[in-house]
Amino acid sequence: MQFELSNEFIQELKALISNQEDEKILKILEDLHPADIASIYNELDIDEARYTYLLLKPSIASDVLVELEDDDRVRFLNVIPSELIAHQFIENMDSDDAADIMQSLNDDKRDDILGFIKDSEQASDIVDLLNFDEDTAGGLMAKELIAINENLTVKDALSAIRDQAQDMDEIYYLYVVDDDNKLKGIVSLKNLLFKPTTTKIIDLIEDDIISVRTDTDSEEVAQIMEKYDLVALPVVDHINRLAGRITIDDVVDVIREEAEKDYQLVSGITHDVEPTDKVWLQVKSRIPWLLIGLMGGIFGALVIGYFEGDLIKYAGIALFLPLIAAMGGNAGVQSSSIIVQGIAGGNMNLKNTGKRLVKEFLVGSLNGLICATLIFAYNLLFSDTFALAISVSSALMIVIVFATMFGAFVPIILHKLKIDPALATGPFITTANDIIGLLIYLSIARVFFNMMF
Amino acid sequence: MQFELSNEFIQELKALISNQEDEKILKILEDLHPADIASIYNELDIDEARYTYLLLKPSIASDVLVELEDDDRVRFLNVIPSELIAHQFIENMDSDDAADIMQSLNDDKRDDILGFIKDSEQASDIVDLLNFDEDTAGGLMAKELIAINENLTVKDALSAIRDQAQDMDEIYYLYVVDDDNKLKGIVSLKNLLFKPTTTKIIDLIEDDIISVRTDTDSEEVAQIMEKYDLVALPVVDHINRLAGRITIDDVVDVIREEAEKDYQLVSGITHDVEPTDKVWLQVKSRIPWLLIGLMGGIFGALVIGYFEGDLIKYAGIALFLPLIAAMGGNAGVQSSSIIVQGIAGGNMNLKNTGKRLVKEFLVGSLNGLICATLIFAYNLLFSDTFALAISVSSALMIVIVFATMFGAFVPIILHKLKIDPALATGPFITTANDIIGLLIYLSIARVFFNMMF
Repeated sequence: MQFELSNEFIQELKALISNQEDEKILKILEDLHPADIASIYNELDIDEARYTYLLLKPSIASDVLVELEDDDRVRFLNVIPSELIAHQFIENMDSDDAADIMQSLNDDKRDDILGFIKDSEQASDIVDLLNFDEDTAGGLMAKELIAINENLTVKDALSAIRDQAQDMDEIYYLYVVDDDNKLKGIVSLKNLLFKPTTTKIIDLIEDDIISVRTDTDSEEVAQIMEKYDLVALPVVDHINRLAGRITIDDVVDVIREEAEKDYQLVSGITHDVEPTDKVWLQVKSRIPWLLIGLMGGIFGALVIGYFEGDLIKYAGIALFLPLIAAMGGNAGVQSSSIIVQGIAGGNMNLKNTGKRLVKEFLVGSLNGLICATLIFAYNLLFSDTFALAISVSSALMIVIVFATMFGAFVPIILHKLKIDPALATGPFITTANDIIGLLIYLSIARVFFNMMF
Repeated sequence: MQFELSNEFIQELKALISNQEDEKILKILEDLHPADIASIYNELDIDEARYTYLLLKPSIASDVLVELEDDDRVRFLNVIPSELIAHQFIENMDSDDAADIMQSLNDDKRDDILGFIKDSEQASDIVDLLNFDEDTAGGLMAKELIAINENLTVKDALSAIRDQAQDMDEIYYLYVVDDDNKLKGIVSLKNLLFKPTTTKIIDLIEDDIISVRTDTDSEEVAQIMEKYDLVALPVVDHINRLAGRITIDDVVDVIREEAEKDYQLVSGITHDVEPTDKVWLQVKSRIPWLLIGLMGGIFGALVIGYFEGDLIKYAGIALFLPLIAAMGGNAGVQSSSIIVQGIAGGNMNLKNTGKRLVKEFLVGSLNGLICATLIFAYNLLFSDTFALAISVSSALMIVIVFATMFGAFVPIILHKLKIDPALATGPFITTANDIIGLLIYLSIARVFFNMMF
C-alpha cells in the first residue's frame, strides 16, 4: 500500500535504467503513486530521471510533474521538449496545476509550451489563471468545475454533469448558476441522485453558501475553509460570476507553508530551506539573522563600554550580563509569538488590543517578580555584595516587564501597518531586548553600587 | 455570506437576551453558520450563552457544540442537563465529534450522558472510539461511512447507499468490503452513477488504495493525506477490517496543531496558549523557559566568576560576553529548527544523517567565518587591544560552529530516542549554547591575553 523509498530500490532501478530494461522499469513505476515516483526522482540523476519519465503514460507523467518539488521540476522541464510537455503532460492536468507549473518556468519556455497546447480553451484557462497573484484565491483556484443552470431538471442536469465530468477526478459540489453565470448556490450529487428526475434544480438549491472573490488573500481562504470545514469553495469575480473553485488539498499547502514561514521567522531563518538544500542556500538563509545578532552584540559592547568604569570598579556586575540579555530576549520572543499566533488565528482585533496589552503587562510583571525573587535569593546566599543582589533582581524585574510589553507591542504595530507581524518574532525583538536589557541593568547597577560603596 | 463579529452586534444580542425576545434571537442566530454562533459565545456570559443555546434547533445546536473551543465547551456542558445533551446534541453528531466531546468531559458526566443515548449502536460507536489514543488514526476517525459489499450490483448498491447515506452530510468515497468486512477498495459515486445498473461492484472496484491502521500515528496520517492529496482515508484494524474513515478537515486540525506546537516550543512556550487566555495560564506556560533561562544565566555567572581574575585585569573582555552568548544561541536555534522541520517533513532518515551533519558543519563554518571576519575587522578598527580582537573573533568562529553542530545533533538524537525533536529547539539548545559559548570565549581570551600582556 505505502511505499518506502530504500537505497536498494534506487540501486536496482539505476541498474535497470543503465541496461535500458524499459518494460521492467515501467512495471515497477506504474504500480506506484505519482507522489512516490516524484520522490524517487530526487534520488536519480537528471538523465536517469528523464529516461524513466519519458517511458510513463502521459496521464501518470502529468501527475508526477505536479508532485515534483519546484526546483526539480524546472530543471526537469528544461531538458524535455516544449511540444512534448504541452501535448503529453499539460493537456492532462487540471488548470490550476498547469498554471502553477507554467508560473515556475521562464517566459520563453512558458510561451513556447502555451503555443503547443491544442485545446484552445485549456490554453486560455491557463493564461487567465496566470494573471492572478499566487497569494490570492484566483491564484489557488482551478477552472475545472461542474456548473449547472438553475432552470434545468434533475434529468437534464445529470446529463450535463456527465458531459462536464469527463476530465474531472472528483466531484465535490455542483455549482448552480443563472443565465449570466452568476453563482446562485450548490446542489450535492447525493441530493440530485435521490430526487425525482423531473424536479427543477432551482428547487434543490442550497443558496446559503460561502464563496470568496478572486482577489481574496490565500491565507483568508485557508481560514475560511478551516473555520467552516469546507472541502471545496467557489470563487467568484467582482460581479459574482463563477470563476473557479478551490479544493482543500491546495489550502493544506497554504496552511503548511504559512506555519513553516512563521516557524522559520521565529527561528531566524529568512528563506524556506530544508536540510537537503545546498550549503550556500543554507548560509544565505541563516546569515542575515546572525549579522543582525552581530550588530546587536556590537551595540551591546558599546553599551557595556560606556559603563566600563563601573565594571572595572565592581567586576561582579559582569557576571550577570549574559543572564540579563538572555532573559530580555526570551521574554520578548514569548510574548511576540503569542500575539503573532493570536493575529494569525484571527482572534486579535483592534477593539481588544488594549486589553491584551494590559494582560501582557500583568503576565510580564508576574514572571518578572518570580524570576527577580529567585535571583535575589540566589545572590543573597552566594554573592558577597548586596548591591549586586539588589541591582540584578530589580533590573531583571524591569527587563522582563519591558521585554514582554515590547514583544507584544511590535507585532501589533506591524499588523496595523499591514506588515507581516511574524517578522517581529525573530531577530528584531531579541536583539533590541538584549541591548535595552543591558542598558537598564548597567544603569541600575551604577546607581546602587555608587550608593552603597 | 461571511459574518463579522462586532461590538454592536453583541450589545444588541445581549439586550434581546435580557428582554427574552426569543423569536428575534432565533431569527438572528439561525441565519448564521454554526462556527459563527460558536464565536459569539466567546463574548457572552455563560448564562446568556446557555439561554440562547437552548433556543436553537438540536441539529444546529450540535454543530455549534462541535465548533466551540474545548475549554468553553466543558464549561458549557457542565451547566446543561446530561439527558438534554444526549438526546438533543450528541445524537445529532458524527461519532468522531461525539467521541471528541465526550473525551473532554470528566468520567461521571461522560457516563451520565452515555447512559441517556437512545441509539445503542451510536453509544457503542462512541465507546469504541473513546478507546483509541487521540493521537492515532483511531482517535481521528469517524464510524460513519458507506460500505458496500463487493458482490452487489450497481442497482442494489445504490439502494444500500440510499439507506446508509441518511445521516451523512457528505459522501466522499464508497468503501467496498468482502463478506468479512475486509476492505477491498473504493468506488466513486460518480463512477457508480454513470454505469449500467446491472454492473457488479467487484468490476468497478479501484483496489489500489491507501489505508491506515487504527494505531497509525496522527501525524503520519496527516503526512499521508497531504502527500497523496486525499480528502478521505479509510482506517482498518489489524486484520484489514474496515474500522472507520478520516476526513481531511480533521487532518487540517492536526497539521495546524502540530505546527503551532512546534512554533510554541521554539518560542519557549510550553502550553497551547492564546492571547485571550487568563493571566495565570499565560504565566504557567511561559515561566518554565524563563526559569531554565535563569538557571542558564546562573551557570553563565558561575563560568564568568571562574574567570573573574581575567576580567578584573582585562575589563575589555566583558564587552563581548553578551555577543558571544547570543550568537551561540542564535546559531543553535537555526540549525535545530531546520533539522526539526526536516524530520517533521519526513525528509530525514537514518542513512542521510551523516551527510546532514557534514553539511551543518560546512554551513556553521562558513557562517562562523563570515561573522568572525566582521567582528575581527570591527575590533581592529575600534578596539585598542589586539588580544581582544583575536580572542573575540576566534571564539566566535568556534562558538558558531559548535552551536550549529550541537543544534543539529540534539534533535537527531531525540528523534532516535523517539522523543519529539521539537523539544530541542527552544530552551535547551539556547541555554546550553549560551553557557558553552561563554566557556569557550573566556578560555580563549585567557590564553591570548596572558600570551600578549
